[in-house]
Amino acid sequence: MKGKDLIIGMFGLGTVGSGVVELLERQGAELEQKYGVKLKLKKIVVRNVAKSRPVKVAPGLLSDNPRDILDDIEINTVIEVMGGVKPAEDYILEALKKGKHVITANKAVLAVGGAEVFRQALRSNCYLGFRAAVTGFQDIIERLSSAISINTLVGVFNGTCNYILTQMEEHQQQLDVVLKKAQQLGYAEEDPSLDIDGYDTTDKLAILCILSFGCSIRRQDIFTEGIRHISLEDIKFAGELNYRIKLLGIAKYVDGRIEARVHPCLVPKDNMIARLEGVENGIQIDDELRGQGGFTAPGAGKYPTACAIMFDIINVATHNTVYFPHHIKRLPIKSMAGLESEYYLRLAVRNHPGVLEKIAGVFGKNDINIMSVLQQRGGDRQRGQIIPLVIMVDKSKEKNIQKAIRRIQALDVIKGDVRLIRVEESLW
Amino acid sequence: MKGKDLIIGMFGLGTVGSGVVELLERQGAELEQKYGVKLKLKKIVVRNVAKSRPVKVAPGLLSDNPRDILDDIEINTVIEVMGGVKPAEDYILEALKKGKHVITANKAVLAVGGAEVFRQALRSNCYLGFRAAVTGFQDIIERLSSAISINTLVGVFNGTCNYILTQMEEHQQQLDVVLKKAQQLGYAEEDPSLDIDGYDTTDKLAILCILSFGCSIRRQDIFTEGIRHISLEDIKFAGELNYRIKLLGIAKYVDGRIEARVHPCLVPKDNMIARLEGVENGIQIDDELRGQGGFTAPGAGKYPTACAIMFDIINVATHNTVYFPHHIKRLPIKSMAGLESEYYLRLAVRNHPGVLEKIAGVFGKNDINIMSVLQQRGGDRQRGQIIPLVIMVDKSKEKNIQKAIRRIQALDVIKGDVRLIRVEESLW
Repeated sequence: MKGKDLIIGMFGLGTVGSGVVELLERQGAELEQKYGVKLKLKKIVVRNVAKSRPVKVAPGLLSDNPRDILDDIEINTVIEVMGGVKPAEDYILEALKKGKHVITANKAVLAVGGAEVFRQALRSNCYLGFRAAVTGFQDIIERLSSAISINTLVGVFNGTCNYILTQMEEHQQQLDVVLKKAQQLGYAEEDPSLDIDGYDTTDKLAILCILSFGCSIRRQDIFTEGIRHISLEDIKFAGELNYRIKLLGIAKYVDGRIEARVHPCLVPKDNMIARLEGVENGIQIDDELRGQGGFTAPGAGKYPTACAIMFDIINVATHNTVYFPHHIKRLPIKSMAGLESEYYLRLAVRNHPGVLEKIAGVFGKNDINIMSVLQQRGGDRQRGQIIPLVIMVDKSKEKNIQKAIRRIQALDVIKGDVRLIRVEESLW
Repeated sequence: MKGKDLIIGMFGLGTVGSGVVELLERQGAELEQKYGVKLKLKKIVVRNVAKSRPVKVAPGLLSDNPRDILDDIEINTVIEVMGGVKPAEDYILEALKKGKHVITANKAVLAVGGAEVFRQALRSNCYLGFRAAVTGFQDIIERLSSAISINTLVGVFNGTCNYILTQMEEHQQQLDVVLKKAQQLGYAEEDPSLDIDGYDTTDKLAILCILSFGCSIRRQDIFTEGIRHISLEDIKFAGELNYRIKLLGIAKYVDGRIEARVHPCLVPKDNMIARLEGVENGIQIDDELRGQGGFTAPGAGKYPTACAIMFDIINVATHNTVYFPHHIKRLPIKSMAGLESEYYLRLAVRNHPGVLEKIAGVFGKNDINIMSVLQQRGGDRQRGQIIPLVIMVDKSKEKNIQKAIRRIQALDVIKGDVRLIRVEESLW
């Protein structure tokens, strides 16, 4: 393809697609001069041609027929920014089979069908760019994929959740209030489940595992717990204990097994991951040979994501490949029951003498060591009143903790669910 | 070169070269399988063949004749880890001219002759890998080079200086004591000038400017001041003021001009750059389109650097190019006199009534606003005794500050030099 022009077809013209159109106009000439190839956007396929768009495009450019891209032999580069697994995945695979380079922003397709898409790209000897699918860590794709000795990846991969958690702390508001505000500002979707229930983080973690460990993991094998149950009280208690609460994606390679999980964590306040504000993403990588590294970046947004696509366009223009493992294996997954961690537990207890004794008894029987007990400061605490109680326990087995929680919830002095947040200690 | 084997000649077999030999042995087979090319180390040229080495190599592999690599038409890839500008630069250019790919760890060559080396690589259509020259930020070469809207780069690029500064703080020792220890541990060279006088940071900053702004800057145009004059007292005073002292490389693109400087700075304690410990490197990047990003990584060491070379070897094997600007321009450099900054000034003053009045008078006449004045706590301060005094001044013109310092130094109540450390406020 050396010196050949890039004739581009794009699926989708939402926020990111508009950004790409804009950047192609702004920088196209500069890139053409720099790399000696012409960039031509020939067709944009959208569901509804009549819909008004945030960017002006020539009328002949739009179409609602995917064949206008897939069957056009002149189009040698396909950008997919339409989202959703189907039909996006089919378009990507067909384009690759037809020898078209593909640049996609679709993390769901890669998380679910990544191995197949990577294989097809290799078979067709085509470029597969996916920086935009992982905007928050687009700069470290090659670093992860070329590594051979990564032990641990821990990070914040979802800007919406990080925004919500930091806003709850800053404005001392509950999650539902902050979520509504985030939706009004466009930081959260109308159906926020993908973000706040952790699924977006899980998809990104799955992609990171493919890149770093050459190992594909099924979504359902990644323990996933979102931030829906995190309350302002948890954030306050965590703060008193010198922690912040973050939704983390965690992947570790231990003795041939993969530990992969997504859940809220207590993170020591002065850690760089704890200090991520707003929609920022960040990751820490521990590499046996290369040492420890950390990265922070804006998690999303029109321009960061459109820039990721432009970067992939440059790669196509310069005949570079993007690294991804050529052989993707399956590795055994470590079960959550086998996890060992420190834990934060918040209980609603009836204020009575002897309550703590009962609770401590359950912990003791389950080989769990209490490190500290915290009660909300101030307020009048009358006998029989329900008050929150926070218990930090030493490194314990998840299986024991879950058993203890079940027992404690059965006690008559406990009201409602026991809230559990794990402490992440592998950060530096 | 597709599918062609990599026949490698290497200049130098010190720490990094030994690491490369080791990693080629450890991972060669895996890489060959992964990328379908054979890797063969054919010749290593060293100054003294008889010298004992940290790694075993087959006897026929060593030579002291550079022609054994440069004139061997079978060798298609040259690794240069010998260091020094000459003759390394000549070897690199000759190898490129002869169509050999080059991988170098040599930052001095790139800082001084980078534009010429890049041009030759382009002309010869050869790969030029230089990750090992910039180990601390090897992962962001493409990110910097593909960017079109970077405004600001600020970072710690020298592990030795960062180690010394953090050790001074931790052990409450003066620089000369810590430096001696660092030399014994091998963290500092016997002649430490390259590191502690800032030149190593300057070279890396020059390379970053080529990558990020496509602009080459002469070493002598980068204001360079090392950490030699930083005393334990400065570190203590800075701590009291909620800062840490770091040797920073700073490059900014403002209105078609480049601001590039290397000097110790006061950095707010909770900033990620301030929190770098030991030999760690870190950088913050402000990009108009892509937002703010931060990176931390081990600054040097045998394996991080050897891994950087292995990464470049993979690039050669997979026919990837490494990004660097195709057109390198010169941009006007902003003079230090035009800088505006907050300043930390430490003076040794004679303890007398009226001293502060005299000093404040000089500042006032030079349009400099004092923010705070700090004296060492405790100790008995007798009249006439020499005591340290720290003055923090508001954003002022460097030119005015320098003028004021000259005036103040001429006062009879001042002993020795006024110590100046700039405050870096562009961090987040």
